[in-house]
Amino acid sequence: MTSTTAQLRRRPRLIVHTGDGKGKSTAAFGLGLRGWACGWSIGVFQFIKSGKWHGGERTAYEQLAHAHESTGVGGPVEWQCLGPGQTWLRATARTDQQAMARAGWDYVRGALAAQRHDLYILDEFNHVLAQDWLDVGEVVRTLTSRPGTQHVVITGRHAPDELIAAADLVTTMTKIKHPFDKGERGQAGVEW
Amino acid sequence: MTSTTAQLRRRPRLIVHTGDGKGKSTAAFGLGLRGWACGWSIGVFQFIKSGKWHGGERTAYEQLAHAHESTGVGGPVEWQCLGPGQTWLRATARTDQQAMARAGWDYVRGALAAQRHDLYILDEFNHVLAQDWLDVGEVVRTLTSRPGTQHVVITGRHAPDELIAAADLVTTMTKIKHPFDKGERGQAGVEW
Repeated sequence: MTSTTAQLRRRPRLIVHTGDGKGKSTAAFGLGLRGWACGWSIGVFQFIKSGKWHGGERTAYEQLAHAHESTGVGGPVEWQCLGPGQTWLRATARTDQQAMARAGWDYVRGALAAQRHDLYILDEFNHVLAQDWLDVGEVVRTLTSRPGTQHVVITGRHAPDELIAAADLVTTMTKIKHPFDKGERGQAGVEW
Repeated sequence: MTSTTAQLRRRPRLIVHTGDGKGKSTAAFGLGLRGWACGWSIGVFQFIKSGKWHGGERTAYEQLAHAHESTGVGGPVEWQCLGPGQTWLRATARTDQQAMARAGWDYVRGALAAQRHDLYILDEFNHVLAQDWLDVGEVVRTLTSRPGTQHVVITGRHAPDELIAAADLVTTMTKIKHPFDKGERGQAGVEW
């Protein structure tokens, strides 16, 4: 059966942003704006809470969700922090982190099975996969066999080879110059 | 005089996103969300209108501007399309494009001199610079001598060496895999 153009334009994408440069997460959140404007349901799942977990992107997405609720423009937004909390402040046992990574992935897997969203942003999920806290083979099988037309964007350094092989679109962000190299401080509004 | 931490955290950044991969513009628009949430005035200047000039990012930013006006959350947004229109539909004389690039840059230069915004997104401006429509030396001098604490993000392929040398933060987005390579179609909500 020949696919129609509309069908070809609704092929679900598995997208990976990796590399040591900036822009992996910000590009995912920028991409989410396009889907949101199309009326898509956006699910953001942050696996590693860090300085950015209460960052400006979340504030902006909350406003977009509010705009959708009050005027019908765009789509709904679900934002879940699935990480172990403020890891930069306290030592967390590796087993705790593994348990939380598994619980987080179970949650996302359930959402995918229920086709809850049109676009999923799994922020820093590559980091979780690189830690060996989950069975990467099972994760990739679940992602590639997800039902419907759900798009998934996964960010973070060290994307595993199995995920890259399975993805439709992979971009590496490479640092050419960074002011931290010169000992400068992070900038409010830029780094978080 | 020793700078305070607050001053160190308000050093104006000149940021460049370049390379042949996806995410240069989306990362800039994602970055803009952080600044917006800090209450910054955001100026978006699109130098090359393309399929994305009426894309979802603009719809989302219009809603954020509206949220600011109605509730005071975040900051104001100015969005200007400075390009020559739908260039993929009609042939435009090179001189017209050059004149429009110059008029667009004059506009941005005036805004920088007036310190109108806290963050400027000069989308696809690298492409304009690569076309030799402007004096790159003058552009770089104007950018590096801009007053105050105005941050600037410049996107597009082929960032000129002079700009990279002057920038504080440069990231290259590199395509590893792209579904267009397999002849697939662009996806609404993903590509625009």
